[in-house]
Amino acid sequence: MPDPRFDIIAIGNAIVDVMAPCADELVERLGMTRGGMTLIDTPRARELYDAMGPAREISGGSAANTLACMAQLGAKCGFIGQVADDQLGEVFAHDIRAGGIDFTVAPRAGDPPTARCLIFVTPDGQRTMNTFLGASQFLPAEALDEAAIADAAVLYLEGYLWDPEEPRRAMRRAIAAARAAGRKVAFTLSDAFVIARHGDDFRALIADGQIDILFANEHELAALTGLDDFDAGMAALAPKVPVLVVTRSEQGAHAMAGGEHARVPAEPIARVVDTTGAGDSFAAGFLMGHVRGRPLAECLTMGAICAAEVISHYGARPEADLGALVKARLG
Amino acid sequence: MPDPRFDIIAIGNAIVDVMAPCADELVERLGMTRGGMTLIDTPRARELYDAMGPAREISGGSAANTLACMAQLGAKCGFIGQVADDQLGEVFAHDIRAGGIDFTVAPRAGDPPTARCLIFVTPDGQRTMNTFLGASQFLPAEALDEAAIADAAVLYLEGYLWDPEEPRRAMRRAIAAARAAGRKVAFTLSDAFVIARHGDDFRALIADGQIDILFANEHELAALTGLDDFDAGMAALAPKVPVLVVTRSEQGAHAMAGGEHARVPAEPIARVVDTTGAGDSFAAGFLMGHVRGRPLAECLTMGAICAAEVISHYGARPEADLGALVKARLG
Repeated sequence: MPDPRFDIIAIGNAIVDVMAPCADELVERLGMTRGGMTLIDTPRARELYDAMGPAREISGGSAANTLACMAQLGAKCGFIGQVADDQLGEVFAHDIRAGGIDFTVAPRAGDPPTARCLIFVTPDGQRTMNTFLGASQFLPAEALDEAAIADAAVLYLEGYLWDPEEPRRAMRRAIAAARAAGRKVAFTLSDAFVIARHGDDFRALIADGQIDILFANEHELAALTGLDDFDAGMAALAPKVPVLVVTRSEQGAHAMAGGEHARVPAEPIARVVDTTGAGDSFAAGFLMGHVRGRPLAECLTMGAICAAEVISHYGARPEADLGALVKARLG
Repeated sequence: MPDPRFDIIAIGNAIVDVMAPCADELVERLGMTRGGMTLIDTPRARELYDAMGPAREISGGSAANTLACMAQLGAKCGFIGQVADDQLGEVFAHDIRAGGIDFTVAPRAGDPPTARCLIFVTPDGQRTMNTFLGASQFLPAEALDEAAIADAAVLYLEGYLWDPEEPRRAMRRAIAAARAAGRKVAFTLSDAFVIARHGDDFRALIADGQIDILFANEHELAALTGLDDFDAGMAALAPKVPVLVVTRSEQGAHAMAGGEHARVPAEPIARVVDTTGAGDSFAAGFLMGHVRGRPLAECLTMGAICAAEVISHYGARPEADLGALVKARLG
């Protein structure tokens, strides 16, 4: 098989993040689930935005963040997601293309507007996310470029996007296209609450051998396996997926692949400013190492380097030169 | 006269900044005037945005930035400027109101969209601004709340907004309203190129005694007076305005008022990240000191403290608690 045209094609929410620092007290007063991601409707979006301090807008979306990091590391990337034909849609499309990522899904006319995520960042750097899905939930299966998917080393899917029906159908079709072409399918579980809603689907995908590389954090691992003990959860899940990657915030990350078990500590940083995109950027570093055939521990280290950069500033997209950071560390 | 309802009412462009780091080479290749502000039309906005890297959107506008700092310092502020009825207009209005600033001008329906400023930030922190004025240029004189202007200690005007005809008329009317009520009028010259276009107007306003507090940087001082020598320029202009404030970037700032001459060095900072809003935040600190009756040198120090905070991160709006910074320094 010749080298694929893309290193990775990702399907994910096309979201602009609206982020502002906030006091711990506000998270409580607004009844938000601290550290989680909650889907919100228009009235709630209005209520939360009204309560939010002066904000900044930076393109986000879990899988799109992952691609932004991977593209910066030199990967050939394509993104599939749905924006509306509006200013925030233009912002999202600009930022993804300006990062060198292929993005050809046409904006959707009319309501609803482009998705946005209202992110409240508390002084400890924790982010509490409130997502208005908007146009993102209407990604149709017809938007898939199946030829491109068949020509990508990895198809990467975002668990968040399993909530809305149309994108879920699109992702199932994309998995079939990738597998038919002999490509790998990577999946991120995204959020413990998403697993509460769709755990059965996810467990079935895994049991059917549809997932080659699975990303989770320790809470998602527990939610998926039903096992609160970390080691027990790893032991239960690892045999079911060729590559399992689990992050534990400041305690580092683990990977298990074909009996091999690697772990790395978190990279030291001066100050955690905003953890938005921590998992996304970790996945980026790991996947970049993986598609370039690096040893498992190096893949983890690349993930840790990317995550450390992204959590040291506001916004989930990289600001520093990730390639230089990886090169300085791993050569 | 009882205490005014507002410390300050400002009239300025209602702009969302679209900012991205860029290499020095790109500024040259795109034919931009490094460090300046250029008005651009739709095709040029398209061209520059296409050439720009992944960006972030943060509310801006010179006078609005000044208010954002002053409101954070505890001033009672009102803003007058024109947004369109679109997503970026919503972002601007949210951010200004979330900062505690009174803003009641109704969004303008239809085209053109809300103003945006494409800001290319080079590695030295210098910003090169390209402004698409959009709805901002259609601020009508009817949008003025003259009762509010008469009830504000200071009316603050942005030279940038002298370019478009409707806001210029609105500002002239606002000056008359403020003066009739015995209030002070503060004016920032904004940019040497604006002075090239409107220097005669500015000099006439000054000669007519319409301006009580004038802000300039050294380049604007030279453009307005026609004198390249800094001291000669100060000596020529100072007798014509009750308070003259001139900033010199890393060389600090000068103020002359009624024969008194004060100067302060720039505040030391670890790294200049982005100078967008340096002058705006300096004016904020100075004006806050002025309306609170502080000595001239303390007003300058407050300006320097605010500017140092704003240039230490991306975006022209403050991130740290300016009040705490001023208190730590001046008590």
